[in-house]
Amino acid sequence: MTAKKIKIKVYRDLMGANDLWASKTRALLKARGIAMLNLISSPGSGKTTLLEQTAALLATRLRFAVLEGDVATTHDAERLARLGVRVSQLLTSGACHLEAKLVHRALLDLPLDALDLVIVENVGNLVCPAEFDIGENAKVAVLSVTEGEDKPLKYPLLFREAKVVVLTKIDLLPHLPFSLPKCLEYIRKVNAALPVIQVSAITRNGMTPWVDWLAAQHRSRIG
Amino acid sequence: MTAKKIKIKVYRDLMGANDLWASKTRALLKARGIAMLNLISSPGSGKTTLLEQTAALLATRLRFAVLEGDVATTHDAERLARLGVRVSQLLTSGACHLEAKLVHRALLDLPLDALDLVIVENVGNLVCPAEFDIGENAKVAVLSVTEGEDKPLKYPLLFREAKVVVLTKIDLLPHLPFSLPKCLEYIRKVNAALPVIQVSAITRNGMTPWVDWLAAQHRSRIG
Repeated sequence: MTAKKIKIKVYRDLMGANDLWASKTRALLKARGIAMLNLISSPGSGKTTLLEQTAALLATRLRFAVLEGDVATTHDAERLARLGVRVSQLLTSGACHLEAKLVHRALLDLPLDALDLVIVENVGNLVCPAEFDIGENAKVAVLSVTEGEDKPLKYPLLFREAKVVVLTKIDLLPHLPFSLPKCLEYIRKVNAALPVIQVSAITRNGMTPWVDWLAAQHRSRIG
Repeated sequence: MTAKKIKIKVYRDLMGANDLWASKTRALLKARGIAMLNLISSPGSGKTTLLEQTAALLATRLRFAVLEGDVATTHDAERLARLGVRVSQLLTSGACHLEAKLVHRALLDLPLDALDLVIVENVGNLVCPAEFDIGENAKVAVLSVTEGEDKPLKYPLLFREAKVVVLTKIDLLPHLPFSLPKCLEYIRKVNAALPVIQVSAITRNGMTPWVDWLAAQHRSRIG
């Protein structure tokens, strides 16, 4: 028996499937001048309330849609749809984060030629969603003052990856044992240049800088 | 060439590695009459503050230790150690939940003959820790009223698995758009028989029923 040279084709997964879908999404949106943001936070930090308050202010400036990520229920999408926001619900069926493929599929069903901005509200989770690229231009870390000052140190990945922190529920500060200077110091420790926008959806404090920041994301996309 | 019968040993992973370690832990603790609880919540819902307040009240009734799970930092373990609590820090190095093997290793380093109760504070995450058995007697769902009423519906697995809900920060209710009856209704929808203990670590409201519940867990373990 003679030794026979056998040729075998080897396919290496140079890019993980998730990253592949994320880069497809990035190319798709870039070609159309659409910016996409990925909002990440703990459960109950006020992402949906922030978007409810954002909707009316943003509507006069940009054409936008929201993709709502959740483990279960369509509650959040219903809240935004009631305000006339164009919104789709992305259910993960138990999974702890949104994956790029599901986001891509949902994007393809949107009227992309009539949009400037897509805001993705990820599953409420301060750990896993920060690890998965979905093709966004920027991750937005949403942190509520009720969660305590130390979260940037305890969950550093998100605060390293984010391009902005939105600090929510600041109307509750008088009732909480929360040190704002300490929280800002902890954020800087993890990511020295990270801007922080303080907002209250109840008093409307800080909503203008936040909406300005959103508009700037779209401008830098088409600029 | 004749066909040859080839015998191949097949090993099937009847029990996943995590479940195997969890059942080792369960046997270890049962043999010693020790109860173990697994506290699960969003980041910043007040698990560590609850344990700070629990420590003094519990110390006169039970011998206990705490295992502190975190993605990063030893902040929480330091907070409890300052109060004289026997505590170890379990760092997951980025992972979003505690695994049974790490918990088992930490348990073996404790003076088990001198303990009645071990309280594990899992990584702050309302999704993943609910999926991983660590050998506990009971999962405790900790939910703060600042997170909104709908969390039991949006993150149902934990509320299905838990044996009790501790509803924290009830001193903030006057300042929040939070409906307590609606929250209780949502909890019952997911798990009709689940008891709910309302607490405030600031006013100390509800601390006695909570500590009574802890003591009952140990009694049922040795009974």
